[in-house]
Amino acid sequence: MNLILLEPHEAADPSAIELTGARARHALDVLKVSPGQPLHIGVVDGPRGVGVVTATTGDEVSLRAEWETVAPPLPSVDLILALPRPKVMKRLWAQLAALGVGRIMLVNAARVERPYFDTHVLEPACYRPLLLEGLQQARDTRLPVISIHRRLKVFVEDELHALAGDALQLLADTGPGERIARAIENTASRRCVLAVGPEGGWNDFERGLFLGRGFRTVTMRDRMLRSDTACVALLACVHEALAAAV
Amino acid sequence: MNLILLEPHEAADPSAIELTGARARHALDVLKVSPGQPLHIGVVDGPRGVGVVTATTGDEVSLRAEWETVAPPLPSVDLILALPRPKVMKRLWAQLAALGVGRIMLVNAARVERPYFDTHVLEPACYRPLLLEGLQQARDTRLPVISIHRRLKVFVEDELHALAGDALQLLADTGPGERIARAIENTASRRCVLAVGPEGGWNDFERGLFLGRGFRTVTMRDRMLRSDTACVALLACVHEALAAAV
Repeated sequence: MNLILLEPHEAADPSAIELTGARARHALDVLKVSPGQPLHIGVVDGPRGVGVVTATTGDEVSLRAEWETVAPPLPSVDLILALPRPKVMKRLWAQLAALGVGRIMLVNAARVERPYFDTHVLEPACYRPLLLEGLQQARDTRLPVISIHRRLKVFVEDELHALAGDALQLLADTGPGERIARAIENTASRRCVLAVGPEGGWNDFERGLFLGRGFRTVTMRDRMLRSDTACVALLACVHEALAAAV
Repeated sequence: MNLILLEPHEAADPSAIELTGARARHALDVLKVSPGQPLHIGVVDGPRGVGVVTATTGDEVSLRAEWETVAPPLPSVDLILALPRPKVMKRLWAQLAALGVGRIMLVNAARVERPYFDTHVLEPACYRPLLLEGLQQARDTRLPVISIHRRLKVFVEDELHALAGDALQLLADTGPGERIARAIENTASRRCVLAVGPEGGWNDFERGLFLGRGFRTVTMRDRMLRSDTACVALLACVHEALAAAV
């Protein structure tokens, strides 16, 4: 935990912020805080700041906050992800938030198994704490916006434009395609939406849907990766290429 | 499992290869093979090929193999990794093998806790099956060579050159540094050795050791990532930059 996140209602009075539960335990047991000590803190979807410890008890920590004037920028990448199996999805939540994504749009595909959509891993009660864990690791406050789309054709043709705007649209695929850095350096767009397929890949119908909406195919090397490894690898390369193209 | 790996002694007679155990179960239950069907197969550190099913029983599959004439190339990246905690290391083995690394050199650092070196996760009986799992996912045969180095100074000053040769040496760090793609595009070397620190980062003494041996500092964005996420992200960017520089 490299930053302690507060919900907006917890941060209403900057002179009297109370940490309880796991966050207090972390401050007391891991950071071993004492009065006068500064902590990295942040408000969900709000600014980062410094919280100076004003008092501690056995299981509570009181802070006085000084907030930065602006919140961190929104992540410049949105992710469309063919829903992986629950175990993999569970592993991904914190990693995606840590890498930085504005939206995570979970979609259906021919090679996604139907029961994947019924898992508790897709419930906010499961994924929100994992997203917060990733943000706290990466010192970010921008909570990814999650949406679930069971009808891929409707999503790509009717809903995607409202969600992704005029971002550069990249379809990650095995086989021939542009290198990510090349696709990004040749565009004026500073935002990307990246579509990552299921472990068995997109089928031709699905490829056609994305290409028909202006997606460009990008490819990494000729290796088949597990969904979670592929997602982290692709997002890292997209972020790196966007940063290099600034 | 996108390729079924055999040990060299199992592949000695290409006309009579027998799969048993988990690999046979995968072929029978997941791939639902029957006689005449081709399978992607490979020999550990040897060639890939096609195995045509000649017979099946309830728990065995017999194959006739045709091997490619050369083995896949050695991965062009070696990894120096400050030993992460056992849970994270266990998650990493398969992912590292899937991404492709020639060597994994696990090293000590000030921010590595001593008990990490005593875990069963560092025993071949634990990690070899996980490495094979990663190779079978990525359709590779090149098993990473693992070594463990408890004395970082001795390793960097006396042992590293023999292991890494004249590869481009990159030190991943937070804070200022070159972009990975930039460091790689400006070198003639087609091999890289990448050093990834512990979650709290390298300390100044450790940085000095690496820089004193000619490492160049590279950095991604200003985000703190968990060791496993950072490793996958960095390796992906290094591989991508090497592929783009060809």
